Amino acid sequence: MVEKDEIIKKLLNGDMKLHEIDKHTESVIEALDIRREFVERFANTSMEHVSKYSLNMEEAMKRNIENPIGTIQIPLGVAGPLKILGEHAEGEFYVPLATSEGALIASINRGCSTIKASGGANVRIVGDKMTRAPVIKAESVTHAVEIKKWIESNFSELKKAAEVTTRHGKLVKIDPTVVVGKYVYPRFVFTTGDSMGMNMVTIATEAALNLLTHKTGAHIIALSGNFCVDKKPSALNLIEGRGKTLVAEVKIPREIVEKKLKTTPEAVVEVNTAKNLIGSAIAGSMGFNAQYANIIGAVFLATGQDEAHIVEGSLGITTAEAVDGDLYFSVTLPDVPVATIGGGTRLETARECLEIMDAHGSGKVGKFSEILAGAVLAGELSLMGALAAGHLARAHKELGRG
Amino acid sequence: MVEKDEIIKKLLNGDMKLHEIDKHTESVIEALDIRREFVERFANTSMEHVSKYSLNMEEAMKRNIENPIGTIQIPLGVAGPLKILGEHAEGEFYVPLATSEGALIASINRGCSTIKASGGANVRIVGDKMTRAPVIKAESVTHAVEIKKWIESNFSELKKAAEVTTRHGKLVKIDPTVVVGKYVYPRFVFTTGDSMGMNMVTIATEAALNLLTHKTGAHIIALSGNFCVDKKPSALNLIEGRGKTLVAEVKIPREIVEKKLKTTPEAVVEVNTAKNLIGSAIAGSMGFNAQYANIIGAVFLATGQDEAHIVEGSLGITTAEAVDGDLYFSVTLPDVPVATIGGGTRLETARECLEIMDAHGSGKVGKFSEILAGAVLAGELSLMGALAAGHLARAHKELGRG
Amino acid sequence: MVEKDEIIKKLLNGDMKLHEIDKHTESVIEALDIRREFVERFANTSMEHVSKYSLNMEEAMKRNIENPIGTIQIPLGVAGPLKILGEHAEGEFYVPLATSEGALIASINRGCSTIKASGGANVRIVGDKMTRAPVIKAESVTHAVEIKKWIESNFSELKKAAEVTTRHGKLVKIDPTVVVGKYVYPRFVFTTGDSMGMNMVTIATEAALNLLTHKTGAHIIALSGNFCVDKKPSALNLIEGRGKTLVAEVKIPREIVEKKLKTTPEAVVEVNTAKNLIGSAIAGSMGFNAQYANIIGAVFLATGQDEAHIVEGSLGITTAEAVDGDLYFSVTLPDVPVATIGGGTRLETARECLEIMDAHGSGKVGKFSEILAGAVLAGELSLMGALAAGHLARAHKELGRG
Amino acid sequence: MVEKDEIIKKLLNGDMKLHEIDKHTESVIEALDIRREFVERFANTSMEHVSKYSLNMEEAMKRNIENPIGTIQIPLGVAGPLKILGEHAEGEFYVPLATSEGALIASINRGCSTIKASGGANVRIVGDKMTRAPVIKAESVTHAVEIKKWIESNFSELKKAAEVTTRHGKLVKIDPTVVVGKYVYPRFVFTTGDSMGMNMVTIATEAALNLLTHKTGAHIIALSGNFCVDKKPSALNLIEGRGKTLVAEVKIPREIVEKKLKTTPEAVVEVNTAKNLIGSAIAGSMGFNAQYANIIGAVFLATGQDEAHIVEGSLGITTAEAVDGDLYFSVTLPDVPVATIGGGTRLETARECLEIMDAHGSGKVGKFSEILAGAVLAGELSLMGALAAGHLARAHKELGRG
Repeated sequence: MVEKDEIIKKLLNGDMKLHEIDKHTESVIEALDIRREFVERFANTSMEHVSKYSLNMEEAMKRNIENPIGTIQIPLGVAGPLKILGEHAEGEFYVPLATSEGALIASINRGCSTIKASGGANVRIVGDKMTRAPVIKAESVTHAVEIKKWIESNFSELKKAAEVTTRHGKLVKIDPTVVVGKYVYPRFVFTTGDSMGMNMVTIATEAALNLLTHKTGAHIIALSGNFCVDKKPSALNLIEGRGKTLVAEVKIPREIVEKKLKTTPEAVVEVNTAKNLIGSAIAGSMGFNAQYANIIGAVFLATGQDEAHIVEGSLGITTAEAVDGDLYFSVTLPDVPVATIGGGTRLETARECLEIMDAHGSGKVGKFSEILAGAVLAGELSLMGALAAGHLARAHKELGRG
Repeated sequence: MVEKDEIIKKLLNGDMKLHEIDKHTESVIEALDIRREFVERFANTSMEHVSKYSLNMEEAMKRNIENPIGTIQIPLGVAGPLKILGEHAEGEFYVPLATSEGALIASINRGCSTIKASGGANVRIVGDKMTRAPVIKAESVTHAVEIKKWIESNFSELKKAAEVTTRHGKLVKIDPTVVVGKYVYPRFVFTTGDSMGMNMVTIATEAALNLLTHKTGAHIIALSGNFCVDKKPSALNLIEGRGKTLVAEVKIPREIVEKKLKTTPEAVVEVNTAKNLIGSAIAGSMGFNAQYANIIGAVFLATGQDEAHIVEGSLGITTAEAVDGDLYFSVTLPDVPVATIGGGTRLETARECLEIMDAHGSGKVGKFSEILAGAVLAGELSLMGALAAGHLARAHKELGRG
Repeated sequence: MVEKDEIIKKLLNGDMKLHEIDKHTESVIEALDIRREFVERFANTSMEHVSKYSLNMEEAMKRNIENPIGTIQIPLGVAGPLKILGEHAEGEFYVPLATSEGALIASINRGCSTIKASGGANVRIVGDKMTRAPVIKAESVTHAVEIKKWIESNFSELKKAAEVTTRHGKLVKIDPTVVVGKYVYPRFVFTTGDSMGMNMVTIATEAALNLLTHKTGAHIIALSGNFCVDKKPSALNLIEGRGKTLVAEVKIPREIVEKKLKTTPEAVVEVNTAKNLIGSAIAGSMGFNAQYANIIGAVFLATGQDEAHIVEGSLGITTAEAVDGDLYFSVTLPDVPVATIGGGTRLETARECLEIMDAHGSGKVGKFSEILAGAVLAGELSLMGALAAGHLARAHKELGRG
Repeated sequence: MVEKDEIIKKLLNGDMKLHEIDKHTESVIEALDIRREFVERFANTSMEHVSKYSLNMEEAMKRNIENPIGTIQIPLGVAGPLKILGEHAEGEFYVPLATSEGALIASINRGCSTIKASGGANVRIVGDKMTRAPVIKAESVTHAVEIKKWIESNFSELKKAAEVTTRHGKLVKIDPTVVVGKYVYPRFVFTTGDSMGMNMVTIATEAALNLLTHKTGAHIIALSGNFCVDKKPSALNLIEGRGKTLVAEVKIPREIVEKKLKTTPEAVVEVNTAKNLIGSAIAGSMGFNAQYANIIGAVFLATGQDEAHIVEGSLGITTAEAVDGDLYFSVTLPDVPVATIGGGTRLETARECLEIMDAHGSGKVGKFSEILAGAVLAGELSLMGALAAGHLARAHKELGRG
């Protein structure tokens, strides 16, 4: 192991860079171990648990990670059975959730139980798209308007150019195209099948832009002009949707609201109005909900989705209505980028988590999306019920005091 | 193993619930294994990798997870050395990043290298707080205004009541307090030391509210009125800050921009204006940046932060300026809830990741925050540089064609 | 005049209502005078100037006002000549501005002078539409998704039904259609010729909805579901546009920036970035500009546009760029509802104000819109120039001090 | 009249500018007439009505207008009696409304009648402030943070410096102060008595900034950094308030809802939720209301308020609740900049309009604000009632059909 010490010394001296280790080792795994050992020495610490992984890191290094030193572990639990009445998912499912937030899974589980007692969650996919929006510079506003018109008039050619680059991606529309001074922001909207599709649509958009620039003299400032909008919260995605746009609802008989959630439909409605609608309004928030991000986050981590897309998944609106004494409750998630193939879904634990919902691989993304929406419904319902139960309990106490 | 089969059968029949397994086993770990096996049978699949964990799940079950079946693994890499000139962090660090997005760590690494060549990243903590904002119902607008005034006039008593519940939490102010019709939304602002503090401030706020309701006759609708704002993107947090509010900057000599980033300061400035400022403006976005969420996400997962807080960490503004031919570049992150104790930071891999930055435990959250801000600066700089390099290359090509 | 006193007595006693006066008088003008006299007596005041009007109030009462007591007057000035290079407006114009804000017209005038010295303002209309978006209630999310699909599949029939009601209105598209739980919000997008078109599109949308409800069993909650968005600031209109979407630009030689605006292109660029882009970003504002509302407001009042539409006209983005030492400056106004026929443009002073731009009546709304955009450019440029001049002066002073 | 023709010829030739006419005439009124005649000749039109004014234009030219050519007239009507139960306004009032939108006053009038029948509108002023927020440039983020701290530590000195410039303005706080990279945006918050106060606070802020720059070496980029936020819609003002922050409510017995509004409390609640809350949420709107801008606009024009401030007055949230079978209804307007002295309130017709509410001059702005909030309540209630009546009628019809 003279070699290893030599490498670590060079790394410590700055004579070698982290990504150069691989050149001096027989395997990438050996390089990984040396890299971790270097970091341990640099920081004067030890990384026992990071080194205890079962993932195939050789595979991961091809597509998922650079400068690897091991893996992290996050506790995984399940909630269920979650009864889904969807177009792609029908039946009962256990939902894998990776989290370190105590009480989260218990809460989701209580929602699942309430939903099941009410006959199941009705779920639908309202929209399905992946987008990329470059920023283009024209020579003048006149030129900018011409480019916008050219795009509108030559959609089929742009579509052809884009789709040459991909088997699964389809360019559905370029809309909206916004002009600001000399800048033009056309939003390329694709469907991407079972993969999340960001890379696919970036490559396809670039191909279409080659045609565009050639024909119009436009200059591309950046392939992404933040009008996509990727991994940033935005009114645009709230309005137009991105990834999967999902709705889920459940109608809960009054006695089940009382028994399972210890509250009343009217109390849930008031909490929803005061908190999720008015409270979010005055906060200038795009999340008119109580905790979508918690459920989206836990399922995303378990199933290998991109953690930065939790940002988009936090958008959405919860509604609650008292109907003939019962509780109607719904969640709407406009912006949920997910996949059942590619990216992090390749990782072994992610694949296993998808498989417990029979949702790994081709043709499964609709099913996965519907279960996900149902899980969000369960978690949201449970927390709103808990808040409403507190509201009700305080109201009774005050009444007693009065 | 008769017992196990019996339990699984009951689970499959719906005669036992997931969380009841523990009552019938000698250890929670045995229960965990049975639970996983049940899920495997239910889904007719096997979970080999999920079961290969090294975390102490007995400990995790006390605070971090319910219905556990194992752990997931996510590849972990490092970027660095990242040179930080902060108030709490000073020197070079390797940053742990858990991700499955290929090329992300390579990109951050290039940013680290550029920053180091430029003398380091100047980082400061602008603000530090954790907030909770209940929604209160008054009897009328008159009463609502009285409650608001009562809160303003009795801050020290509310502070006393709140701080009884906590050793580390300090109630700094209650501001703003917004009235909407009969509803009142006071935002309780605390400092919480090295823990993220959500639970702490919830308990402390509840104690203060007991006093408030007793004195004013106000009725609490919900302990959180979405005016906190927790885990939802919001203009309020963008403006007022939440968690740590961080700024980081670097001044990069022109030749380093050219050599390391293959572009010019002017090209970076134009991309920043067209994409991060104008593009985000027309998208109605709160993320005036290119990819904060990617870096925040990867560090958060590595270090055991709450994954749903990635939502808040995605907010912020990047600035770029050409100064005397060099590039000034900064990131501002108003809303970064983090901890170095408690929550997910207790998990073994998280602790190890914090330790490689010497940032685990009490008194370390300032240091960790500054390194985090530097890492975001590195990632943002690298991506903006890459986009600007493409912009420049296309401009040269077009010139050649012209 | 016994009668008059009788009427006033009844009004004071509450035995007659304001709108009932007309039944007891020979003319509406007599009623108007009695109404004013009643108000004077009620308030123990006198309204000398309100009674001195020249408008034909008989005509106004048919369409523009109820319970009239006279008119108000607002000072009217002009700025110009404003040189416009548009598609519909070409040449020099004087712009009518009704305001009580001192220095506003002087400022706009300075902008006109700078624009003229630079060769004129290049103006284009990017979009032209008027919208109405009802809120529809379905029986379930499944039904909601069906309604959305029905709308998408039956556009031509909905179009036919809508256009029966109007000669000038054309239904261009219904997009986007957003589903939230059971609610559906389809945005009906029309062109409306030279009239602003709100009434026209409301009637046409109602006709289309009759077909929709008949075919789908949908229930209309309200003809406007606030997704239009009329007279409220919204990201939707910023993104998709409403009314006219306008861009105007001017390229100002460096020496003219220095001579007319007493500043430099670089100083204007910095103020624009720090104030209009970053400042508005952190304020959570949709107005990435300095003072569009001032100019929009003054022209709207002069020309009889709806004053509440000033809200929408305040949206938009200013860009500034230093190009080869000169200043490129643009304004983009996505949401400007205007008319040259109907509504307040019928009023005599409004008509006269439109006529000084040769922009009253049919076929003139394009011309008027372009002049309006040019006026906004002039006002914005002038204020930004003034701020930049202060910035520059302070910078010089500080340098001298240093 | 040789002279006049000479002047007009020069104006037509471009040898004289509009504002230079005054030098060649004996009175500003003569200049005004020549200016108008010039415009008439330039445009080959005549301006009969514009010239028929009664305002004292000599006075107006001192403070309200440049390059005047006359006045415009807008129809003025009244709605009422509006019964107000406020802190400053108590009793019945007639509200002056200047508008050209047919049916608006009739609608507001119906609301007044409903409010009166219900015992009156309960109104309160929640906040009162005028703000100015410069953008300051520091040398680095370190310096920026120092400046922020300096501001926080030296408030009383800054207050003293600011208040030297004004008798009525009081600096209440500087909050929030936001740092973005090197830029610092401190929001100076004043009270300004009965005047709207923009000029006052601008001058006072400038004085404070002189001290600040002297002590800290900060450089002022612009006196307004768009973080004020003046005349642009913003989440900041929605959250923190600007001008007067107003709430008004009314509790309407069920039978009055049915008789006056032809609907039910439940129908109003549903329209409010579906339209004002959810509809505005998905539109990314800051106006969670139906038509505040219409009423704000009509009162602002009648009473000489700044027309561009209608933008800010459009923000706000309407709530509706069914309480024991009756209707609770409220409006909240966070951002209403108004005055009863100075600016356009000096104009004769504006003064007369304020006087019919006994709300002109010193000590009256509280009264005026409360009446204004009551008028908005009336208009909002009436429109929401009308929409709900349609909703109900359709529901009945559908039921009959079913």
